[in-house]
Amino acid sequence: MSDIQVLLVAGTHGNEINAAWIFDQFEENEKLIDFPGLDIQTVIGNPIARKNGCRYLDRDLNRSFSNDLLNNSGLNNLEIDRAQWLLSKYGPAGTKPSKIVIDFHSTTAAMGSSLVIYGRRSADLALASIIQNRLGLPIYLHEGDPSQKGFLVESWPCGLVVEIGPVPQSLLSSQIIKSTLLILLTSLKEIIKANSDQAIFPNKVVIHRHLKSLDFPRDRLGRIASFIHPKLQGRDWYPIKGGHPLFVDLLGKITYLDLESFSGEVIPLFINEAAYAEKGIAMSLTKREVLDLRKEDFKQLIELFNI
Amino acid sequence: MSDIQVLLVAGTHGNEINAAWIFDQFEENEKLIDFPGLDIQTVIGNPIARKNGCRYLDRDLNRSFSNDLLNNSGLNNLEIDRAQWLLSKYGPAGTKPSKIVIDFHSTTAAMGSSLVIYGRRSADLALASIIQNRLGLPIYLHEGDPSQKGFLVESWPCGLVVEIGPVPQSLLSSQIIKSTLLILLTSLKEIIKANSDQAIFPNKVVIHRHLKSLDFPRDRLGRIASFIHPKLQGRDWYPIKGGHPLFVDLLGKITYLDLESFSGEVIPLFINEAAYAEKGIAMSLTKREVLDLRKEDFKQLIELFNI
Repeated sequence: MSDIQVLLVAGTHGNEINAAWIFDQFEENEKLIDFPGLDIQTVIGNPIARKNGCRYLDRDLNRSFSNDLLNNSGLNNLEIDRAQWLLSKYGPAGTKPSKIVIDFHSTTAAMGSSLVIYGRRSADLALASIIQNRLGLPIYLHEGDPSQKGFLVESWPCGLVVEIGPVPQSLLSSQIIKSTLLILLTSLKEIIKANSDQAIFPNKVVIHRHLKSLDFPRDRLGRIASFIHPKLQGRDWYPIKGGHPLFVDLLGKITYLDLESFSGEVIPLFINEAAYAEKGIAMSLTKREVLDLRKEDFKQLIELFNI
Repeated sequence: MSDIQVLLVAGTHGNEINAAWIFDQFEENEKLIDFPGLDIQTVIGNPIARKNGCRYLDRDLNRSFSNDLLNNSGLNNLEIDRAQWLLSKYGPAGTKPSKIVIDFHSTTAAMGSSLVIYGRRSADLALASIIQNRLGLPIYLHEGDPSQKGFLVESWPCGLVVEIGPVPQSLLSSQIIKSTLLILLTSLKEIIKANSDQAIFPNKVVIHRHLKSLDFPRDRLGRIASFIHPKLQGRDWYPIKGGHPLFVDLLGKITYLDLESFSGEVIPLFINEAAYAEKGIAMSLTKREVLDLRKEDFKQLIELFNI
């Protein structure tokens, strides 16, 4: 049985530096990431943006993996070029191929440690459930949002995003480093265990299904007119109901969660993620749900272990 | 008696957005900043950097006000051009002149609300002492550091920097907005009171005198090798002694504060300010001291009220 090929990505956004810093340490000391049975590749998603201390240069790399962009050559766009290169090297049909990718991010939102999956692919749900079962991480299931597409992990047959916060952009934090490393090492151990049938395969997975994103109130010039209400700031994963304060302006005028659209409880995520203001996202609203898992889901995951 | 001309600056660093956002609100509603007796100008220091969501484009605007740069035309540098323009318009000899400037910043360090002055100019110390007396703010006295020079406020006869944190770059925060606005409005009120001899003129001011800055431990490639120790993170303004842990690496190796150089207590500031890593500054060490103030110091301040 050959080694399982796993791709780990950090610095897909150049100013999310904690996981990228951990990769530097792996480079200095390979023993830190020595897992018999795994053939691990680590790569910095956007090294030029990292060097420049910014999220991206031409466009968000983590929205650059849509087919229309990937199949279009000669766009002269740094991030699209990089997406194409990453796939040609590390993609499932690349020169150093992998079918499984874990992409490590950080956020200014008070998300703690969490996983993000895009759509309901069996292998993603299976891998996420194993890690959730081990570490108790909440999972954000992003789907039904055509305004946000082309995420890196969608180009691999199985891929998870790890999101950890709160941490400012471009800031090294002992807490974020610790959390990132824990999830990274645990995920790799669980992949090994799953391959030797020693992992626990849960028959349920708790997810937070994307409902919609809300923008900040804007003024006549399109500028942000109100900031996140103090009663919402830092309250990611806490359920709120219609009527909950969302935003407040300098004169104290409050914008509330619409009562009619959201009569039941919803769970806000990515509250005040600094990089999302330009995308018109002040927060995303989700619904907590439990999905059933079948043996077939895990079978699909394990099939990807053999390249 | 003509109105006192006061210049307020925000967004000198484009990704320190809270004070700049407050200025937007002043633009929408002039009543928010209506002070009889004052002729207030507000200006965004670096609007292009603000639009780009970054600290600066070509060089740090708040290190671009040194005489050698200001007197050199044709450097084709966005921030030097901007520094020259700001002075030509709002400088003491500008077309909309002011002799007093307050420059509003934010930091990722847990500084709370604080003032920064550069050197020991009488007017700066006098104004800072009045505000300190009213709000209890700590003051960082930056001096004796030739590696950091050309700060904006040094080009005006009297100028303070307001630093508030912790807040991520590019993030609007209710707490930071509230603190910024409080200091802004209080400072203006105190200037009016000082001019009519109604302010309290303290005979002492407590400052934190700059001793030196410390860089992160670096690896053979010049990359950061250790992060801020959890026992130091967020502990700005708390005294430490030689032997206190400063940094720790991924293997747990700790770097301590040098016992011999710092036998007494020192007070660290700007611990883990994200923008300072590129300047080789992980924190600055200071000494808390009390300076005497004389009537002459306040006289020099009040003379600047009449342009």
